[in-house]
Amino acid sequence: MTRFHHSDPAGGALTYHGGRLDVAAERFQSAPQPWIDLSTGISPFAWPTERLAAPDLRALPSPAALAALGLAAAEHFGAPAVPIAALPGSEIGLRMLGSIDPPRPWRVVGPGYRSHLDALPGAMAIAPESLDDEAGLGGTILLANPNNPDGISWQPDRLIAVARRLGERGGLLIVDEAFGDALPDTSILPLIERDDPVLVFRSFGKFFGLAGVRLGFVAGEANRVARLADRLGSWPVSALAIACGTAAYRDTRWIAAACVRQASVAADLDAVLARHGLAARGACPLFRLVETEAAPEIFDRLGRSGILVRPFDDAPRWLRFGLPADDEAMRRLDEALGNG
Amino acid sequence: MTRFHHSDPAGGALTYHGGRLDVAAERFQSAPQPWIDLSTGISPFAWPTERLAAPDLRALPSPAALAALGLAAAEHFGAPAVPIAALPGSEIGLRMLGSIDPPRPWRVVGPGYRSHLDALPGAMAIAPESLDDEAGLGGTILLANPNNPDGISWQPDRLIAVARRLGERGGLLIVDEAFGDALPDTSILPLIERDDPVLVFRSFGKFFGLAGVRLGFVAGEANRVARLADRLGSWPVSALAIACGTAAYRDTRWIAAACVRQASVAADLDAVLARHGLAARGACPLFRLVETEAAPEIFDRLGRSGILVRPFDDAPRWLRFGLPADDEAMRRLDEALGNG
Repeated sequence: MTRFHHSDPAGGALTYHGGRLDVAAERFQSAPQPWIDLSTGISPFAWPTERLAAPDLRALPSPAALAALGLAAAEHFGAPAVPIAALPGSEIGLRMLGSIDPPRPWRVVGPGYRSHLDALPGAMAIAPESLDDEAGLGGTILLANPNNPDGISWQPDRLIAVARRLGERGGLLIVDEAFGDALPDTSILPLIERDDPVLVFRSFGKFFGLAGVRLGFVAGEANRVARLADRLGSWPVSALAIACGTAAYRDTRWIAAACVRQASVAADLDAVLARHGLAARGACPLFRLVETEAAPEIFDRLGRSGILVRPFDDAPRWLRFGLPADDEAMRRLDEALGNG
Repeated sequence: MTRFHHSDPAGGALTYHGGRLDVAAERFQSAPQPWIDLSTGISPFAWPTERLAAPDLRALPSPAALAALGLAAAEHFGAPAVPIAALPGSEIGLRMLGSIDPPRPWRVVGPGYRSHLDALPGAMAIAPESLDDEAGLGGTILLANPNNPDGISWQPDRLIAVARRLGERGGLLIVDEAFGDALPDTSILPLIERDDPVLVFRSFGKFFGLAGVRLGFVAGEANRVARLADRLGSWPVSALAIACGTAAYRDTRWIAAACVRQASVAADLDAVLARHGLAARGACPLFRLVETEAAPEIFDRLGRSGILVRPFDDAPRWLRFGLPADDEAMRRLDEALGNG
């Protein structure tokens, strides 16, 4: 029997990391079909790949095509002058951090991604309130902006100040802007100046609704970006990722419309949640976080109705809701929440 | 001006790593079009992706789909029981080796890939003849089988013996089988037993002619495969790579026909080379290596004729020829070689 060694994102059969419809379908076997997956922060409104000519999958991607992708992304990020490198998903980039030996001590601002603790094994979890004090100690601080799952965001000038304070002691600020496309004003990238000790990770798949493409970026301090790029070699991402990413980042009209659409659907989601006494504790245009004693009961009720949302092992009062894809999904959610 | 930090596979403007048609076209500006790229070992006969239903790029690939890919690959490799993990290209896997801290001293069997020295920085280059002696010293030995560019291959039982000898001193054998699909009898994978200290890297793109998909595998000793997989996280490869790889590895009829076709075209290539006094010094079904004093002159002559072959900075008497894609390409090669 072949043994497969990719770590299981479900973290065991009884938890529900985003996107594990298969696990949910097994538990809620009599749920109506089709399942509605609200368990991820991936936009249900995908950039239309049918606009692409079929990419040439036969040849190795050229350095020129990779450079064009990097430039399209950097311009979209509002930071055309910042060194940037493409990654086959920001997750892989985060997990490669160890290979460039970030300065110690390592700290991760919580609550946040489990993958941040995997990226900096043994890092200390610190509270957002202690960020400034911790910056004075040097070392590496990793945080997400906007944060997931609570949607709390930092002002980018605040983070630049933190980075420079860290830098005075040889430290490094790492910002995971996986949801940055949805809140571009929160990005630190346009503020970065040469030699600022900052690394920023960006994700393509969430805002553009194409998580299966596996594309992300690391941008920031030149030497560290170069070292991460070097660990990946000359062909870090697929021809499809280059084609999709280059075209989608240049599609400013689609991007502007997507921001409006996501905000509109998120407002509709707020209204549905409010009708059932649920207010967003935290919010990002791509998800809402609800805090309620009834979270486990609501999770089960939605599951029996064929709707998967995101629970949290270490925060049992939380549920995260992604954006319903259409009116029918919104209606089913409304109905299922009312079945209390 | 954006600074891009992917290492340049051309290694500078005057060298010609495989696949750098853009660099060649700049140097040979009056060459006839279209260029014929014989500079890579990528098969010109691609698995027909039009057989695939368009993969769903919107969701994160599921663990079940990733496991099915691993199983299809492992069965194709003749090693369904060996632990395996998918990689976004074997190049990235090789470059991640440092993260699992292979036992020292590190040695790389040459002549071989520059990327092997990048994978184990500071490794000593050793000659093939010293393999058995070196195995007695423990540590890590990395080699390619069949080797590139000279096409020399090792018997797999010989390599198993080397691995076990290394293992007696806590060592590790790493075999890059990037061209293994074309010579399946050379693979060590079917011989590996539990706890044999072996890691094998496989490449999807070369034999299947789909290098732009970025897909590879690492297989072998369970603990080390698991640690490499863990460095990549839960979504190591794209939905397209999973769809292409799963379908292509299961397409045993196409695979058998591809072996026949590659061998037939390689024989035609031998005949054309022989007609011009060039005999293959080394051979693999996907390329031929020629050694001649006239190599630089032939490289230039072919370049002026719009044909790119692979020179070697540190072996100026060598040229590697990939397979021409069709009769017209073979005819142009024949004609260009005759223009002496």
